[in-house]
Amino acid sequence: MNILKLNAVKASPIMRQQLRSFSAAPVWAQKFRQEADTFGNLQVPADRYWGAQTQRSLQNFDIGGPTERMPEPLIKAFGVLKRAAATVNMTYGLDKTVGDAIVKASDEVIDGKLLDHFPLVVWQTGSGTQTNMNVNEVISNRAIELLGGELGSKKPVHPNDHVNMSQSSNDTFPTAMHVAAAVEINHRLIPALTGLRDALQAKSTEFKDIIKIGRTHLQDATPLTLGQEFSGYVQQLTYGLVRVNSTLPHLYNLAQGGTAVGTGLNTREGFDVKVAEAISNVTKLPFKTAPNKFEALAAHDAIVEAHGALNVLAVSLMKIANDIRYLGSGPRCGLGELNLPENEPGSSIMPGKVNPTQCEAMTMVCSQVMGNNTTVSIAGSNGQFELNVFKPVLIKNTIQSIRLLSDACVSFTKNCVVGIEANEKKINSIMNESLMLVTALNPYIGYDNAAKAAKKAHKEGTTLQEAAISLGLLDEKQFKEWVRPELMLGPTKADK
Amino acid sequence: MNILKLNAVKASPIMRQQLRSFSAAPVWAQKFRQEADTFGNLQVPADRYWGAQTQRSLQNFDIGGPTERMPEPLIKAFGVLKRAAATVNMTYGLDKTVGDAIVKASDEVIDGKLLDHFPLVVWQTGSGTQTNMNVNEVISNRAIELLGGELGSKKPVHPNDHVNMSQSSNDTFPTAMHVAAAVEINHRLIPALTGLRDALQAKSTEFKDIIKIGRTHLQDATPLTLGQEFSGYVQQLTYGLVRVNSTLPHLYNLAQGGTAVGTGLNTREGFDVKVAEAISNVTKLPFKTAPNKFEALAAHDAIVEAHGALNVLAVSLMKIANDIRYLGSGPRCGLGELNLPENEPGSSIMPGKVNPTQCEAMTMVCSQVMGNNTTVSIAGSNGQFELNVFKPVLIKNTIQSIRLLSDACVSFTKNCVVGIEANEKKINSIMNESLMLVTALNPYIGYDNAAKAAKKAHKEGTTLQEAAISLGLLDEKQFKEWVRPELMLGPTKADK
Amino acid sequence: MNILKLNAVKASPIMRQQLRSFSAAPVWAQKFRQEADTFGNLQVPADRYWGAQTQRSLQNFDIGGPTERMPEPLIKAFGVLKRAAATVNMTYGLDKTVGDAIVKASDEVIDGKLLDHFPLVVWQTGSGTQTNMNVNEVISNRAIELLGGELGSKKPVHPNDHVNMSQSSNDTFPTAMHVAAAVEINHRLIPALTGLRDALQAKSTEFKDIIKIGRTHLQDATPLTLGQEFSGYVQQLTYGLVRVNSTLPHLYNLAQGGTAVGTGLNTREGFDVKVAEAISNVTKLPFKTAPNKFEALAAHDAIVEAHGALNVLAVSLMKIANDIRYLGSGPRCGLGELNLPENEPGSSIMPGKVNPTQCEAMTMVCSQVMGNNTTVSIAGSNGQFELNVFKPVLIKNTIQSIRLLSDACVSFTKNCVVGIEANEKKINSIMNESLMLVTALNPYIGYDNAAKAAKKAHKEGTTLQEAAISLGLLDEKQFKEWVRPELMLGPTKADK
Amino acid sequence: MNILKLNAVKASPIMRQQLRSFSAAPVWAQKFRQEADTFGNLQVPADRYWGAQTQRSLQNFDIGGPTERMPEPLIKAFGVLKRAAATVNMTYGLDKTVGDAIVKASDEVIDGKLLDHFPLVVWQTGSGTQTNMNVNEVISNRAIELLGGELGSKKPVHPNDHVNMSQSSNDTFPTAMHVAAAVEINHRLIPALTGLRDALQAKSTEFKDIIKIGRTHLQDATPLTLGQEFSGYVQQLTYGLVRVNSTLPHLYNLAQGGTAVGTGLNTREGFDVKVAEAISNVTKLPFKTAPNKFEALAAHDAIVEAHGALNVLAVSLMKIANDIRYLGSGPRCGLGELNLPENEPGSSIMPGKVNPTQCEAMTMVCSQVMGNNTTVSIAGSNGQFELNVFKPVLIKNTIQSIRLLSDACVSFTKNCVVGIEANEKKINSIMNESLMLVTALNPYIGYDNAAKAAKKAHKEGTTLQEAAISLGLLDEKQFKEWVRPELMLGPTKADK
Repeated sequence: MNILKLNAVKASPIMRQQLRSFSAAPVWAQKFRQEADTFGNLQVPADRYWGAQTQRSLQNFDIGGPTERMPEPLIKAFGVLKRAAATVNMTYGLDKTVGDAIVKASDEVIDGKLLDHFPLVVWQTGSGTQTNMNVNEVISNRAIELLGGELGSKKPVHPNDHVNMSQSSNDTFPTAMHVAAAVEINHRLIPALTGLRDALQAKSTEFKDIIKIGRTHLQDATPLTLGQEFSGYVQQLTYGLVRVNSTLPHLYNLAQGGTAVGTGLNTREGFDVKVAEAISNVTKLPFKTAPNKFEALAAHDAIVEAHGALNVLAVSLMKIANDIRYLGSGPRCGLGELNLPENEPGSSIMPGKVNPTQCEAMTMVCSQVMGNNTTVSIAGSNGQFELNVFKPVLIKNTIQSIRLLSDACVSFTKNCVVGIEANEKKINSIMNESLMLVTALNPYIGYDNAAKAAKKAHKEGTTLQEAAISLGLLDEKQFKEWVRPELMLGPTKADK
Repeated sequence: MNILKLNAVKASPIMRQQLRSFSAAPVWAQKFRQEADTFGNLQVPADRYWGAQTQRSLQNFDIGGPTERMPEPLIKAFGVLKRAAATVNMTYGLDKTVGDAIVKASDEVIDGKLLDHFPLVVWQTGSGTQTNMNVNEVISNRAIELLGGELGSKKPVHPNDHVNMSQSSNDTFPTAMHVAAAVEINHRLIPALTGLRDALQAKSTEFKDIIKIGRTHLQDATPLTLGQEFSGYVQQLTYGLVRVNSTLPHLYNLAQGGTAVGTGLNTREGFDVKVAEAISNVTKLPFKTAPNKFEALAAHDAIVEAHGALNVLAVSLMKIANDIRYLGSGPRCGLGELNLPENEPGSSIMPGKVNPTQCEAMTMVCSQVMGNNTTVSIAGSNGQFELNVFKPVLIKNTIQSIRLLSDACVSFTKNCVVGIEANEKKINSIMNESLMLVTALNPYIGYDNAAKAAKKAHKEGTTLQEAAISLGLLDEKQFKEWVRPELMLGPTKADK
Repeated sequence: MNILKLNAVKASPIMRQQLRSFSAAPVWAQKFRQEADTFGNLQVPADRYWGAQTQRSLQNFDIGGPTERMPEPLIKAFGVLKRAAATVNMTYGLDKTVGDAIVKASDEVIDGKLLDHFPLVVWQTGSGTQTNMNVNEVISNRAIELLGGELGSKKPVHPNDHVNMSQSSNDTFPTAMHVAAAVEINHRLIPALTGLRDALQAKSTEFKDIIKIGRTHLQDATPLTLGQEFSGYVQQLTYGLVRVNSTLPHLYNLAQGGTAVGTGLNTREGFDVKVAEAISNVTKLPFKTAPNKFEALAAHDAIVEAHGALNVLAVSLMKIANDIRYLGSGPRCGLGELNLPENEPGSSIMPGKVNPTQCEAMTMVCSQVMGNNTTVSIAGSNGQFELNVFKPVLIKNTIQSIRLLSDACVSFTKNCVVGIEANEKKINSIMNESLMLVTALNPYIGYDNAAKAAKKAHKEGTTLQEAAISLGLLDEKQFKEWVRPELMLGPTKADK
Repeated sequence: MNILKLNAVKASPIMRQQLRSFSAAPVWAQKFRQEADTFGNLQVPADRYWGAQTQRSLQNFDIGGPTERMPEPLIKAFGVLKRAAATVNMTYGLDKTVGDAIVKASDEVIDGKLLDHFPLVVWQTGSGTQTNMNVNEVISNRAIELLGGELGSKKPVHPNDHVNMSQSSNDTFPTAMHVAAAVEINHRLIPALTGLRDALQAKSTEFKDIIKIGRTHLQDATPLTLGQEFSGYVQQLTYGLVRVNSTLPHLYNLAQGGTAVGTGLNTREGFDVKVAEAISNVTKLPFKTAPNKFEALAAHDAIVEAHGALNVLAVSLMKIANDIRYLGSGPRCGLGELNLPENEPGSSIMPGKVNPTQCEAMTMVCSQVMGNNTTVSIAGSNGQFELNVFKPVLIKNTIQSIRLLSDACVSFTKNCVVGIEANEKKINSIMNESLMLVTALNPYIGYDNAAKAAKKAHKEGTTLQEAAISLGLLDEKQFKEWVRPELMLGPTKADK
């Protein structure tokens, strides 16, 4: 038992990753093969497809451990890109056997079959070059294997000459960023968010006739229906969907074809347009080539913009989850207007102690997304000349925010919203205790008398009805006729 | 001389404001008149139009001093709103004499003639009620004055019954927020930003034939034109304009008509639509009533969204201003590719020391806007039940960000961008010293020889041409024919 | 009435400042005198002490208007610094007549008598050079005036040669930053914060015997005293004072003596130590010369550190103010455990609607400070080589945060905390309704029976006592003897 | 190949985790055993020690996937805490056999042997209750196993009655937060930061005689030594160490003993003090019991404070890494004053293209930490009444920031700083081209002539020496005698 030692000791990079990996370290082969780059030879685990540049990065960037690896959706997006580039390159003369093998290997990347072969962390070179090379090396070696060649031989499929043909890290990485973000938004976030919005809409409809006290400044105010209250949440998320959708057009612009500095040097005219089409074909999303490649490499405003929409979502969801947990507080000493579903033991002895744990998970996620927005803004503002070199941190935070918001929406919907019940008895009794209803008496007994009744009730702790009757201002029947919260839920009709 | 005393002493609120006011304290009348609210009587300066509730807020919220007052565009927007409400209320029975007087007084608010009568700070009640009452009181007293009545008498124009008719602070303040933000974006930010974009576009065109070294990772890379480099900036701001414009539709949705909790209690059916039209008529902007008033009072996601677009602008401008100051660094020991205009003495003895002060002002503004984005996000996320009570801080930060970005864009355009000159001699000599051009030799002398020439040049500190010639790989004529940066600026033509 | 025109029109800089100044524009003289700098001659208002460089900055940096001027405490700190430098320079040969006049003029700056002569905004050069020159020009002209000379003549007191003697903007501005921040923390923040802490402590003592329900996850939990609850707030602020105090030692390190790049070129050996002593004498604070001047010019980590302590304060105060407004929510439909003082009308008809406006002002301030922390962090991280050129935005945000927190603490103390009353009746009734007290029955009737009683009470909406008695588990006397919240307020005594 | 499907499909929770786990999914047993909590029975993987509450959380909080699990140092800290509690509980009557088994199992947790048994993510209940129960369940089952019992039987070691004895999630989780943060700061961050500081100090010493041009506003300024420039970095980190250390005393205060709401109900008097001592014994760090447990549960200001110190570090390191990459920019078209070590291929053909990848990783880490600071501040400000329920997100971000900063410092030191070489030739030639040296000529040829020489050199692009000689102001020998940068590196000696 030695907490100090474990934390202080420095082992060799791979050893250390194994030591630290959280319940999940891949036990790589104990055999090695030799791979080479322009710096020389390196030993890589024999059962991994990566090559020398990946191995070198592993050794030079021992930062954060396995949980800090490049996000999976980015790796898959790279698979999409490499597949698309090979397809186009074959029309420009890439050998068909080589090209087809690249396509097959890329498909395995897209399908997530090769994820164990992408060990690099986010905290590497800011252009993401090492991950681009990791992809090139893995696809090349896997394609070589498919063609019966020798791993590490770079024959017949060369990582640079073939897999990276007409490409540069400087245009592939931002392309993969956009593809990953757009896919995740379309296929993860929007369904999750729509699901939550719809569930809240269903509750709004379900609760449309339940009249309750309104609260402004946390203080008693005029009534509204619980359905109206929930309709505000629905509107927030409906707008949120609009906001998220409105960031997609900029994400659909792809940097591919800009190569090293944005000029497109070493590509053929038209390559950029064709690659975007090919990516569009694979993903069924309307990607197109960016109108200005200099912007696409040197700035990542589209990512900052997209994260800004995630930030607004976090702001909305924080409000909604906070409201719900306060409305569900109790069982005896809180507001108690909502009964939240009980998903786990809240207290072993006290019934009704239902901790709003789904709200808590959601609001924690929101605080993370709001902080990620700061990170993304700082990273986005730090481009220099022809390249922004904060690419990995930008995409990591964006993917994390999308994933957390999406999963939290699904969990919150399933484990909380759909099970919310109105505690009508409590809602009703609270509202009727309220003194705010006094405003309904103005037309009948006059402002001054109404105020007198309210003051008496407040001072003596009675209901408004009791106070008004005891002052001789009206009788019970009149009170019930005049004070009708259901008439306080909207504007006065035009004909009144 | 007593810095300690000045900072430690606490004077009465008004005294203190005068003491502290920065070069600009209004010297209010020494005479007072009596005003009253439901809490009782209060003395107010005789030459001010405000009433008891304003005076009470002044005394209860002595926070921050005069520089922290409610932003002027918000006050003007309130003028627009009160004018519009009076117009509509006259169609619903508001006395025409009273209504017309309110319209006239509101026009003076819109014209900025009554700004001295709005002393309240941002740090008051979170609903902005006190500023709504300040507006009601000032317009009522000014209207009374126009009608020959007595200040403070509330006759014939009552601040609540007439100026605030059919309204609540809870819907007027968010309405004024949206009006102020939308007006400022349309009439201040968009022109300023367009001006900067166009100035950068003019430079991009002017510099279209100047070939220079590209830089990625800050390291020498392949060439591009200075015009291409600037085209990236232009693209960033063109997108920025799209982003800012895309937030306007949500800002055009107005809360007015929701009254206290969003139900519209105490308004007549259709009031909300008519007021929005009236506001639209005054401002010539397409305001309309919000589809859901509960959302419009309880959340301010539209403001968070709009500020998100400002945040992306800040991110873009930080990048652009940073690039320009680095490219203009020198005169001898920096990159020196650009000559920035000299607006003030940089050094009394050393010519050419032109500090990039406009870039500095711009990047400081960007850092402020990025921080304001955090403030706005936190404030926006903290709505509770039927009301978000962070309204003043939300609009203050938004107005400040718009103003600072706008003014900084105008200043940066006028005092920096239009005067930028390319130092062609330096640009050319730097590029020719570069070794990156070696890539152009591959087809002629082969990859290995090209690398050999580059290595020799790097080692010996000579030019590539000198090294290649001394290695006997080519002659000067061939070098000049083969190494032509102007052929490295785009993709290979389709017919090559 | 023309809201559009007012917002769109661009007037000349000074005109514009007058147009825009919020209720408070100084009406400068209509006469002008000529001043000169190395760029040439400029007209300045005849009744202002500033000179050509100030005037030039006014024209070149028309950003934000009067509310964005350099904060007053910084100007006063510059007065302290110029006084100290003159004192030391006299020991190194500065003419005594000149030196004494500088001292006198500096004292007027310290006393705030010349604030109308410092019109420059924060958004200028990032080194603050123009404000340093503004100070030099004003002190020089005022000193000339005191000595009977001609304004603008630079004789016998020259702004550079005498007022700025042995100094550079690069060391004076950071020195003034530290002096301003340290003075404001000592004389504004610490007293205000201590006052709030002490007021909360008084309440904690006052409430020490009031037993109430605890709430975790917003749900009913075991009891504690209201005094214990408040003791948590007291502890937060006591730690907060420690945190703020612990940042002072780094602020006490002064850059003065580093001159242009930190080497101290153009100063005499020992000048740095002596100036720090002289500043210490004026301010009675333990300033000393920074051990490394390169760090002191190129980084502002001490400011970021100090703002970090303000950020923790904002975090603490947000929690405290939120708790208090929720505990005071009601009057009927909230928690209602506290009665907050009623400072202004909450509702014209409904008694007891006391909006927690002081809590709202405080939490808005907290959101501003938390955003300012982002600004300060970004600005602090962007130093380049020998100089950080985000100095003005750094000090502006720091001074604003200190001022807002201080004023908000004073206001919150005076207008809220000291008047808080416990609603003992409500506290008691809520607690007795709670089912959490069931845990006290375990030793007497067993865990299973206790749970049975709680479940019955929860299901039937009765009290725990009613349920337990109706189950025949105990009688009323036993319940009262066994369920005693006052025994649940601490650990079991060692002898039990 | 189906990127769409993979992203859209929803599998069962466990299935999904396996699908998504990044290269590292534990393949849990296909056999299951039954575990129970008060909600009923649940199947858990037969080869895992966790029980029903953990399993329930896994199913209810399917958010983020394996990379979002509770950080390892927190789990280890829980091991420390449970060990300490068992030790103390034995002195209060806990059966020795049971207690000893808990101690043994806890040691395995501390040693990281059971990490595969902690599958819960951060995004769960905000009190961290489920992780506390995960720990209780794992230790109980492992202890049962050690004693030869049956997993899931809760005999003879009960997760609640024995492992969690005298504890509540509400005090254990914050205790584990402090222990984890303090251990990580002491054993990971401080050594890493000290290592970087010392490496920079070594470079500062190595470079103490290399005179170079200073740069302010990025523009040429007066000279300093490269050693002086690096001494600024050293000072920043020395202060940084002080800052980090100064946050430790508050982290050493432990919540343990507060139980549910801070009162310490269900503990014995003195338990809190003894547990803190026991934790101190295990960790060799000076933990002690918090003076106020209400604050310790309801607020996490100590964590916000500690992260504030990490934020200042990020600000410092951003500056340092930015400087180093700019100074190392080139090889031909940048500043080129430093040669950074070449760790991986920068370009396959162009020698000298050394991308500053370690600086890039470092600055990305800094942007992450600065964003995490926003998250931590928001989370810290959102405590409610007796409990802050953002505990997991607070500790996750803190642990991540510590780890990333630490690893990045180690990597930056080893792979960059120790290998930095001064390019003395370039440094010298740049400095001699500079015109700033003209200031040295003032005393000899007068200010006007000096300015004339500088202007001529600037205009004609010659050196200062050439210009001065050609103007007949001096000869070469005089120039060399008078213009001596080595005399411009500090204040004038007292005797001059």
